[in-house]
Amino acid sequence: MRAIVLIQVFFLHMTTDSRQQARRRQILDAARLCFRQQGFHGTGMAQIALTSRLSVGQIYRSFPSKDAIIEALVLDLTAQKITVIGREDQALTRIARELAWRTLPELMDEEDTDRALFFEIAAEATRNPVVARLLEAMDHRLFTEACRWTRHHYPQLSEEEVSARVELMAVLTEGTLFRHQTAPKYDAARLNALYLQLLQQLFPES
Amino acid sequence: MRAIVLIQVFFLHMTTDSRQQARRRQILDAARLCFRQQGFHGTGMAQIALTSRLSVGQIYRSFPSKDAIIEALVLDLTAQKITVIGREDQALTRIARELAWRTLPELMDEEDTDRALFFEIAAEATRNPVVARLLEAMDHRLFTEACRWTRHHYPQLSEEEVSARVELMAVLTEGTLFRHQTAPKYDAARLNALYLQLLQQLFPES
Repeated sequence: MRAIVLIQVFFLHMTTDSRQQARRRQILDAARLCFRQQGFHGTGMAQIALTSRLSVGQIYRSFPSKDAIIEALVLDLTAQKITVIGREDQALTRIARELAWRTLPELMDEEDTDRALFFEIAAEATRNPVVARLLEAMDHRLFTEACRWTRHHYPQLSEEEVSARVELMAVLTEGTLFRHQTAPKYDAARLNALYLQLLQQLFPES
Repeated sequence: MRAIVLIQVFFLHMTTDSRQQARRRQILDAARLCFRQQGFHGTGMAQIALTSRLSVGQIYRSFPSKDAIIEALVLDLTAQKITVIGREDQALTRIARELAWRTLPELMDEEDTDRALFFEIAAEATRNPVVARLLEAMDHRLFTEACRWTRHHYPQLSEEEVSARVELMAVLTEGTLFRHQTAPKYDAARLNALYLQLLQQLFPES
């Protein structure tokens, strides 16, 4: 009898937990949409509630503030980017191609919501110290992860050489993300060749 | 007598013109400040009027809409960037240093207003087609200017080689602008060496 009660409590807990998870997801999806359409400053909790078809009270039970919602979205974005860094197939030819043709995984989101969110975070970080700290925390995690990956695959490189290369790759990736905002005006095959040469120098086959 | 009247009309015109110029400047400075603090979406014409100590009517006489103010700011930014492209001293060693230490002219603005504005434009361009067109027009002018400069200084390069190099430089510059949002985590001397090697390959002394 006691066991059954315990099992019931367990399942009840599970259900509540997954219901909470689903509600968080519902709020975050609505917030992404609102931020994308109106920016952080143009979006209020009431708007997020309306879009997610929840009450403002329900939103506040999951997230104490708009900054907390932004934080959850930044954590999602970080997790996504860490997956990209950890990809098994990090062939230089593929990376050169993705940079030259602007087909980086970050740019393959059809609705461009993540890219819009990334710019929104960058803009907001220039005026909101909470968001600036989130951006810094994200960058710290991604940078550490990328250094770990590089060290593992290129053990011949010194710590200084690893960090300089990771920074250069971050510049190329984020710069390409930015450039994607405007129409391509260059010869992609030539740019591909330039990138391939650069990458082969940075990461020589040992 | 008639000449004097003409001269008076001329000076009257001049004064009105420069007064209008001063008012435009006053509005644009206020708008930059507002956009920086609250973003495009968080800023209304009333707020810009308040900050510039003018009436809303006076603002509308100079600019028919908020988009028109954004357009004027983008044109200002374009002019500034064209000045940077046209610098006499484009020594590769200096550019490598500016990239590695994040001391590009675009980053030397103490209050970071221009950088904040740039991110705001990028974020807004993802949702506002008017701003997307402005960004594209700015990029088109800058790209054309940079190609002209490169062609002039490196006549041995083909058109395709010129455009690929200009795009790569744009990626590096805009990527560094982006990276400046977060704390440096790399060895700048090593990165400087990597940039110098890359630039010397892209732009060999003929």
